[in-house]
Amino acid sequence: MHRVTVGFLGCGNVGGGAYDIIQRNREEIALRDGIEIVVKRVLVRDLNKVRRSSCPREIMTTSASDVLDDPEISIVAEFLGGIEPSRTYILKALNAGKTVVTANKAVLSSCWSELETAAASNGVGLYYDASVAGGIPVLKNLDYCLQANRIDSLVGIINGTTNFILTKIADEGMSYENALKLAQEKGLAEADPTMDVSGMDVVYKLSILASLAFDCHIPIEAIYRQGIAAITPDDIRFGASLGLTLKLLAVAKRTQTGIEAHVHPTFIPDTHPLAGIRGAFNAVFLNGNAVGDIMLYGKGAGALPTGSSVVSDIITAASAKTHRYSSFLLKDVRAKLTEEWESCFYIRLTVCDEPGVLASIATILSRYGISVASCVQHNANDGTAPLVFLVHRVSNIAMRSAIDEIARLPEVKAVNNTIPVEY
Amino acid sequence: MHRVTVGFLGCGNVGGGAYDIIQRNREEIALRDGIEIVVKRVLVRDLNKVRRSSCPREIMTTSASDVLDDPEISIVAEFLGGIEPSRTYILKALNAGKTVVTANKAVLSSCWSELETAAASNGVGLYYDASVAGGIPVLKNLDYCLQANRIDSLVGIINGTTNFILTKIADEGMSYENALKLAQEKGLAEADPTMDVSGMDVVYKLSILASLAFDCHIPIEAIYRQGIAAITPDDIRFGASLGLTLKLLAVAKRTQTGIEAHVHPTFIPDTHPLAGIRGAFNAVFLNGNAVGDIMLYGKGAGALPTGSSVVSDIITAASAKTHRYSSFLLKDVRAKLTEEWESCFYIRLTVCDEPGVLASIATILSRYGISVASCVQHNANDGTAPLVFLVHRVSNIAMRSAIDEIARLPEVKAVNNTIPVEY
Repeated sequence: MHRVTVGFLGCGNVGGGAYDIIQRNREEIALRDGIEIVVKRVLVRDLNKVRRSSCPREIMTTSASDVLDDPEISIVAEFLGGIEPSRTYILKALNAGKTVVTANKAVLSSCWSELETAAASNGVGLYYDASVAGGIPVLKNLDYCLQANRIDSLVGIINGTTNFILTKIADEGMSYENALKLAQEKGLAEADPTMDVSGMDVVYKLSILASLAFDCHIPIEAIYRQGIAAITPDDIRFGASLGLTLKLLAVAKRTQTGIEAHVHPTFIPDTHPLAGIRGAFNAVFLNGNAVGDIMLYGKGAGALPTGSSVVSDIITAASAKTHRYSSFLLKDVRAKLTEEWESCFYIRLTVCDEPGVLASIATILSRYGISVASCVQHNANDGTAPLVFLVHRVSNIAMRSAIDEIARLPEVKAVNNTIPVEY
Repeated sequence: MHRVTVGFLGCGNVGGGAYDIIQRNREEIALRDGIEIVVKRVLVRDLNKVRRSSCPREIMTTSASDVLDDPEISIVAEFLGGIEPSRTYILKALNAGKTVVTANKAVLSSCWSELETAAASNGVGLYYDASVAGGIPVLKNLDYCLQANRIDSLVGIINGTTNFILTKIADEGMSYENALKLAQEKGLAEADPTMDVSGMDVVYKLSILASLAFDCHIPIEAIYRQGIAAITPDDIRFGASLGLTLKLLAVAKRTQTGIEAHVHPTFIPDTHPLAGIRGAFNAVFLNGNAVGDIMLYGKGAGALPTGSSVVSDIITAASAKTHRYSSFLLKDVRAKLTEEWESCFYIRLTVCDEPGVLASIATILSRYGISVASCVQHNANDGTAPLVFLVHRVSNIAMRSAIDEIARLPEVKAVNNTIPVEY
């Protein structure tokens, strides 16, 4: 039996879950991996706070030094979130020869190279499977299961809050505002939901996931982003009538001109495996040049699922004789990115219900080489009518230019939404 | 760069695919894992056979000793299939201090303890991710990604041939015979399809998968098995009218009385993630006590997908300083199995279209404590009519006894099918 002494930085939702898993599955972990995990000290802000976890008060401390300066602690698990003081603590642990396990996507996507370099130069490990898609071990699958592949594309639902909101709008015809309120009541969305609904949380995660998948650093600034706040039940209904389901997707592809990475609401066919991912579940769909299409599905958040990834990382770290480093981080290999990408598009306009409107719009689309796949004018109301187009594959830049021009037509009252469609 | 010299036993479909992946992804593997894989010798039966793979004739040999006795070869990848001579060759390689990677479910499910023990006593590795679900790294996920969990249940579609046949019957109303013929024409089913359609192939794989998931040996003899040959378009249509989809499932659960393991056609709700797995795709749905529900989806067969698992295993083995062994195999820990398991059931009977039939059947069900959830009599034909029952959760043994008694009723012309329903 190999005994490993661990210190926790933080004991909130995920930290408490990880503590409970270690206690509950002690026997299974010993039997399968021959490892006994002992959590020696746990850094908290408030010793008197009532906690759901079974973590005993005797091992809690308000001094980070009790964790970071204890030579017996060989692995530090960080659950604080945010950039500071996490970055400082993680660097201190690594430089003291401790391996670090973290679920912190913010500190990783901001200071990843610095942290990985510190880990490598100290010969210790940096593990972060929990930072993307909670309980789904997608990063570990890239590193430990799919190594034979060149990954060519990935498409993922990696934010449970927005997937819950979109599922409620789709299933129950709720407005965006009411669905968001329900998510907040259920504890699935923060009081300030901006990180989730703006797509920023997905951008952080896609930066980590796509960098690992494509072996080059894709910084968050390089990722195009569009949130879900403008989505209405109408969009989802019109899409459904065309056999399409709306999801907030993270998309990254290896193309001949470079790597494209974008986050936006996206229509996918109802038959696509991602269309069935409902509520707070997450899924990542990958294409590797050997394995072909592969999808991983599970809970993207929550104390126990995210704790599952953290504790599995602790076991992997404790079993490893040497650790794995991503050479693109150590060598600072940046992605060759392309801002131009192709997609089909769904366009919803509000137009005057009069002759000639369609001709004006179609003329502009045609001038940009955009070919219409289908066009449906829905019932008019007060002299205006919703007009929905599906157009064939076109560059996002040509699409943007055409839309800008269409928006200036006097017969067009509003461009309500332009949403990529992935087949 | 760590150079690893590999020998192949066999160069058929999967072996050829593995060879091609190693060549094609040489740069990516070097960049990500710092490993250069050199395939030095390849055992074949016929040097002159035309092959799809790029494997050059110069490295082929018809003598196993050229692979097994070459001290430079540190990893042997076995692609022969079947029990002998695979078992002998694998043991010889392990005893010569070589690590073995195999996709061979037959030799594993028959001689697993012997092989694992030989690997452990020689301090070399035995890797077999490709033996279950082809390209889906489900075994590796258990060992390398989900270690924090006690796995409580698993349900899988792990045979692409039968899933293709059932999808064709469901989508196109084909008869079982015609769907099987089509699968044979497409190269998805063997000339003798018994292994697949009888469920035996699934039993082999479930034995390996469930043993690893539950950390105890579940031999193939302990697994209840029912094939798909009796399925008709009627069953699938009647199920569809109840919101159910039919799949050939491998099921294993940890229960209070022991572990249950069974393979049979099963109805699942149309909304279950496994219901959408179509054609030759595979998927495994697991429940862990930390991660909750998780599903892995991908290609369960084929040269490149299965080759992906083999080559990933080679990379894992080449990177490992020490290898992982399953202690339940070394210590011969057998599963405590239970033959009794509970499920809801679908029952299709052909009955005489006359008064009193329903009363007789309902009386028998009631005597065995079986509660009817719904009952539909379809249109009569020639004085007989199909009668379909859905019954609530009941033990498989009570169900069997009730069905035996119902079959003896003179008004019952045939018990066409009794199919478990998993909600």
